[in-house]
Amino acid sequence: MKSIFYTRFFILLPWILIVIIVIDIDTKRLSVRNTASFYLSRLGNVQQQRQVVRTTRSSSSSTTTSSSSGSNATSLPVIYAITPTYSRAVQKAELTRLANTFRQVPRFHWIVVEDSNSHTELVSRFLARSGLRYTHLNVFTPRRFKRTGMPRATEQRNLALGWLRGHRSVKDKGVVFFADDDNTYSLALFEEMRSTRRVSVWPVGLVGGRRYERPLVEEGKVVGWYTGWKADRPFAIDMAGFAVNLQVILSNPRALFKRRGAKPGMQESDFLKQITKVEDLEPKAKNCTQVLVWHTRTEKVNLGNEPKRQQDSVYIEV
Amino acid sequence: MKSIFYTRFFILLPWILIVIIVIDIDTKRLSVRNTASFYLSRLGNVQQQRQVVRTTRSSSSSTTTSSSSGSNATSLPVIYAITPTYSRAVQKAELTRLANTFRQVPRFHWIVVEDSNSHTELVSRFLARSGLRYTHLNVFTPRRFKRTGMPRATEQRNLALGWLRGHRSVKDKGVVFFADDDNTYSLALFEEMRSTRRVSVWPVGLVGGRRYERPLVEEGKVVGWYTGWKADRPFAIDMAGFAVNLQVILSNPRALFKRRGAKPGMQESDFLKQITKVEDLEPKAKNCTQVLVWHTRTEKVNLGNEPKRQQDSVYIEV
Repeated sequence: MKSIFYTRFFILLPWILIVIIVIDIDTKRLSVRNTASFYLSRLGNVQQQRQVVRTTRSSSSSTTTSSSSGSNATSLPVIYAITPTYSRAVQKAELTRLANTFRQVPRFHWIVVEDSNSHTELVSRFLARSGLRYTHLNVFTPRRFKRTGMPRATEQRNLALGWLRGHRSVKDKGVVFFADDDNTYSLALFEEMRSTRRVSVWPVGLVGGRRYERPLVEEGKVVGWYTGWKADRPFAIDMAGFAVNLQVILSNPRALFKRRGAKPGMQESDFLKQITKVEDLEPKAKNCTQVLVWHTRTEKVNLGNEPKRQQDSVYIEV
Repeated sequence: MKSIFYTRFFILLPWILIVIIVIDIDTKRLSVRNTASFYLSRLGNVQQQRQVVRTTRSSSSSTTTSSSSGSNATSLPVIYAITPTYSRAVQKAELTRLANTFRQVPRFHWIVVEDSNSHTELVSRFLARSGLRYTHLNVFTPRRFKRTGMPRATEQRNLALGWLRGHRSVKDKGVVFFADDDNTYSLALFEEMRSTRRVSVWPVGLVGGRRYERPLVEEGKVVGWYTGWKADRPFAIDMAGFAVNLQVILSNPRALFKRRGAKPGMQESDFLKQITKVEDLEPKAKNCTQVLVWHTRTEKVNLGNEPKRQQDSVYIEV
C-alpha cells in the first residue's frame, strides 16, 4: 500500500512541476514582450526613422522618387517637409542642422528640391548619408526670375507638390509643410502640425521686422493677424507658419504657387486662398501663442581670403 | 515485471520532459535577451540620452552644478561642450538647433554659460526642457571688455573650465570642446573628438575668409596651417577646431583664456600653448581632410516693425 502511494506520488509530482513550469514560461514570455514594446515605445522616434529604410535612389536626372507608398502599418500621418535649396557656401551646413532636427521627427519624409539643372553631388551624397526618408528633386529657376522682389523657390515648391500628386493617393495619411533650409524648427512644431485636418497655422518668430507674427485667435477661430508688414495680406503669414493636409493638396490638383503676377510677400496668400478660407484655419501652438519656429537667416559668408591660384593640396567639400 | 517497467517509465518520462523544458527556456531567454540588446544597440543614441537623467538643477544664483559625477558604468568618455551665450533676438532659436543636434550625441554634457548677472528665465526654462544633461552657469562680462577687437566670451569659457576643475577628478573620462552657439555641428564631429588623448584638431568650414581652415598633416603630425588670416598664429585654428582631454584640463589648473594682453584672434593660440605643442596635436577627421563643423553666423534680426507702444494682447517668448 505504502509502495503504491510513493509510486503514484512520484508519477504525479513531475507532471505537476511541468504544469507549473509551462505556466511560468507563458507569464515570462508575456513580460518579455512587454519589456520589448516598452523600449520600442520609449524610443519611438529613432525606431521609426530606422524602420523607414531609405527607399529613394537616383533614377532620373530631374526626379528621384520614393518607392515607399507611405502605407506604413502605423496610423500616424507622415509629415512631408518640402525644402527648396540652392548651391552656396553655407548650403551643406544648413542641410546638416536641418537633418539633425528632422532625424528626431517620427514618420518624416523630406522632399528636397534643388534649384539646379541636375542633382548636385553634394546634395545627393548628403541625403544618402542623412539617415532620413527622402525624395530628391531638382528644377532650375530661369534667370529672369532671379531678381530682387521676385518670389523665390516657386518652381521648387510646385515641383514637390506635383511629386506628391503623382506618388500619393487618397489612402495615404500625411501633412505637407514648407520647410525652408535656413529656418529653425523645434521638435514640438512637428507634433503640433501632425493633427492638421485641412490647413493649420501658428506663430513664426523673427519675421516681418518683428519678434514674431501670429494669427489672432478668438474662440478657436482665426480672426486676424498680428503683423508689422503688409497687414492687408489675406493670409498675413510666413511660409513656415502653416501646414496642409495631404488630402487637401491631392483634392486641389491645380493649387500651386504663382509665378506670373505674383507680388512680393504674397506667395503664401496666393497659395492659401486656393485651398482654404481664413475662418477654416486650424490654430495650433496653444491658440497661436507659442513660437515653435524661427525665421532665422544665415549670414552670407565672406570668402575674401580664398586664394585665387594657390590652392590646398587636397579637395575638401564644405 | 511489465507493471514495474510502466511504473518506472512514467516516473522517468516527466523528469526527462522537465529537463527538456528547462533547457528550452534557457535558450529562449537568451534569444529574448539578444533581441532586447539588439534593439538597445540599434537605438543607442536616444537610449543613452534618456538614461542620462538630467541631474542639474538651479542651486545658486551664479553657478548651477551637476550632481552626476560622470562615473557612469559605460566607459565611453563624456563630451563636455562649453557654450557661452548671451541674450539677443535669435538666442532661443540658436539654442534650439544646438539642442536638436546635441540630443543625438551619446554621453554628452552641455555646459551653458550665460553672459548675465543671473540665470535668465529663458535659458533656465529652455535647458530644463531640453532633455539633455547640462550645467547652467553665468558670469557677466564687464562693459569695458565689450568692444570691437576685444576677445569675446573669455569669462564664460574660464568659468566653465573652473567648474570642470571643481567637479571632476582623475577618475572621470571626458573630452572638453568649445561649442559656440551659432556654429553648425555634424554628429560625426563628436565621434571624432571622443578619442582625444590630449589635444585633437580638425578643419573648420567657413572661417578666416575662406571656405575652410585646416591643420596641415604629414605622417600623422600637424606640420602647419592652411589659413588665409594671420598665418603667423602659433595655432592658426578656430575655437571650434579643437578638443582637449578632461585630464589635460585638470592637470593644467592654471590654463585659462587670457583677457589682459589678448589680441584679436589669439584666444585659441594663447590657450593652447599653455597645454600642448603643435607637434603633439592629434589630427582627426581623416588627417584633417574633412569639414565636420562650420563657423556659421546668424544674421542680426531686423526688428524695425516692432511696435513702440501697441503691443500684442499676450506675452510670447521668442
